[in-house]
Amino acid sequence: MNKKRGQQSVVFSIPPILKATAAIAGPMEGEGLLAGYYDQVMEDDLAGYDNWEKCESYMMEQAVTTAVKKSGHFMMDIDFLLAGDLLNQLIATNFAMRSLGRPYLGLYGACSTMAESLMIGAMLLDGGFGNKVVATVSSHHNTAERQYRYPTELGVQRPLVAQWTVTAAGAVVMENGTDGPKVTAATIGKIIDAGIKDPNTMGPAMAPAAVDTIWQHIQDIGREPAYYDMIYTGDLGKVGKELVIRLFREKGIDISRNYEDCGCMIYREDQDIHSGASGCASSAAVLCAYLYPQLAAGKLKKILFVGTGSLHSQTSYQQKESIPCIAHAIAVEV
Amino acid sequence: MNKKRGQQSVVFSIPPILKATAAIAGPMEGEGLLAGYYDQVMEDDLAGYDNWEKCESYMMEQAVTTAVKKSGHFMMDIDFLLAGDLLNQLIATNFAMRSLGRPYLGLYGACSTMAESLMIGAMLLDGGFGNKVVATVSSHHNTAERQYRYPTELGVQRPLVAQWTVTAAGAVVMENGTDGPKVTAATIGKIIDAGIKDPNTMGPAMAPAAVDTIWQHIQDIGREPAYYDMIYTGDLGKVGKELVIRLFREKGIDISRNYEDCGCMIYREDQDIHSGASGCASSAAVLCAYLYPQLAAGKLKKILFVGTGSLHSQTSYQQKESIPCIAHAIAVEV
Repeated sequence: MNKKRGQQSVVFSIPPILKATAAIAGPMEGEGLLAGYYDQVMEDDLAGYDNWEKCESYMMEQAVTTAVKKSGHFMMDIDFLLAGDLLNQLIATNFAMRSLGRPYLGLYGACSTMAESLMIGAMLLDGGFGNKVVATVSSHHNTAERQYRYPTELGVQRPLVAQWTVTAAGAVVMENGTDGPKVTAATIGKIIDAGIKDPNTMGPAMAPAAVDTIWQHIQDIGREPAYYDMIYTGDLGKVGKELVIRLFREKGIDISRNYEDCGCMIYREDQDIHSGASGCASSAAVLCAYLYPQLAAGKLKKILFVGTGSLHSQTSYQQKESIPCIAHAIAVEV
Repeated sequence: MNKKRGQQSVVFSIPPILKATAAIAGPMEGEGLLAGYYDQVMEDDLAGYDNWEKCESYMMEQAVTTAVKKSGHFMMDIDFLLAGDLLNQLIATNFAMRSLGRPYLGLYGACSTMAESLMIGAMLLDGGFGNKVVATVSSHHNTAERQYRYPTELGVQRPLVAQWTVTAAGAVVMENGTDGPKVTAATIGKIIDAGIKDPNTMGPAMAPAAVDTIWQHIQDIGREPAYYDMIYTGDLGKVGKELVIRLFREKGIDISRNYEDCGCMIYREDQDIHSGASGCASSAAVLCAYLYPQLAAGKLKKILFVGTGSLHSQTSYQQKESIPCIAHAIAVEV
């Protein structure tokens, strides 16, 4: 059966369900807008480890084991995991996967990886290649900062357009079943490069990719934005979010009433993080801690979850390249 | 229909075919054992670009466009690409994908990525999510060397167990069809960490992961190693290959007669590269330049292609972590 629709989208014939989610967060996130929603909040950003990278691995491992526990299954029941993070060669993920001991497919979509992993996971479940999979991602402010920008000790002043990498991990147990929010459709993104070269301006860099994927989703599946209760982008922050609204307005669509960016849902205004949250865990924390319980309770019925990723590296920045961006979308419906 | 078999494997109900492949290689590879088999050999390792990273992107782009041309299709016919490389944040891939303009899923399995991308591609095709996909990877000796080890200008002496990262890219066009070698089964790897900490000793580090995946394949699918004309691992080199043979001998299986490592098939002995080839492009170049034409001509009928990956980073090495390794296997049959 052909499940492809239009240029970039797919619809599921037997939509897999999201069975359970879990999110573990750092102390700053634990004091933010989603305080009380996380499964676990760490007391500090090391959690007893001697470096931040190990702490990031620990967060992912905890998120996965907690989600699996909440799903009522055992780790041995999980057919495979789809996972990724922002670190060079995915080391946070690789060491978490070493502990978990299950088959593993490594993904890299920068901050779009939560959506990418859910999308591929749903396709593999609907395709009959497993019954239970876990999609998981992590990010850590301190590991990302020193890898992408400056040594953390330097305390460099950040421009107001800059975002703050979320210290958190999220995990989703997906399975073939009927009792839960369903992944009904997905749109695979393509690279959109708006020509922005400043890695402190990732929100505006990614916004055109988000718009391209949502627009393509509308064309391919024939669902207007109003079809969804809410459309969520991953980590565009305040500036990027405004740009998405403006770009849709130019297409004659008012998306402002049912659109929000996960990057604006994590920190309080007085936490002084400037333009909002970023990182793989921005969309993952919001989905796993906040949106999923609402979907499971039927308070939210139809959402489009759009992961957004900046696909640059320190090397490409130093070579004066612009930032190639991507967005992947999945529709989750009750 | 449940296509999962045993703990880690899947069998395809409508096995996708490999329709066409292409490989582009650097000058040293062009003078090696596979001289005359590549679609294109670059005159130098920059190909007119001002840095090696851009040259690596160019190689991937060339490999993809050449493979698509050989398949008789147009780029617009390709539903999506599955791709990855060794560079931080996959920048070689991201910039190639920017040029190609098609939907794209980024993967990271280090040097196992060719097998990982073919495996996921085959599952998505068999699942009905597309009709034509491209799986592609690249590596470049100079980009990898300066990222993983020392500045290339330093000319550090390499130990005899060290391998040489292949400068090449390979691309495979896969589709739903009947006229071509078929992907009939696959085994998803799990992390195996043998405790090795020296990134110059990747072959021996990865060998236990290769053995684990091949052994699991035998258990899950019930095919003895003798079922295959040949079993190929990705880039274990001379030392790692001997270790695989020894580890199977300890299990009472003589694998030596129908087993080879792609890392031993690229360079001539007198090219002085020590233990053999490594990198994403080691297995990709051998598959795309050498094995595929033999499969297409029916000279090889049944192979097990086992991508092998070292999932460490410079950071994990500096933090004195051991190297987590993985191997993914796909069976290709005529």
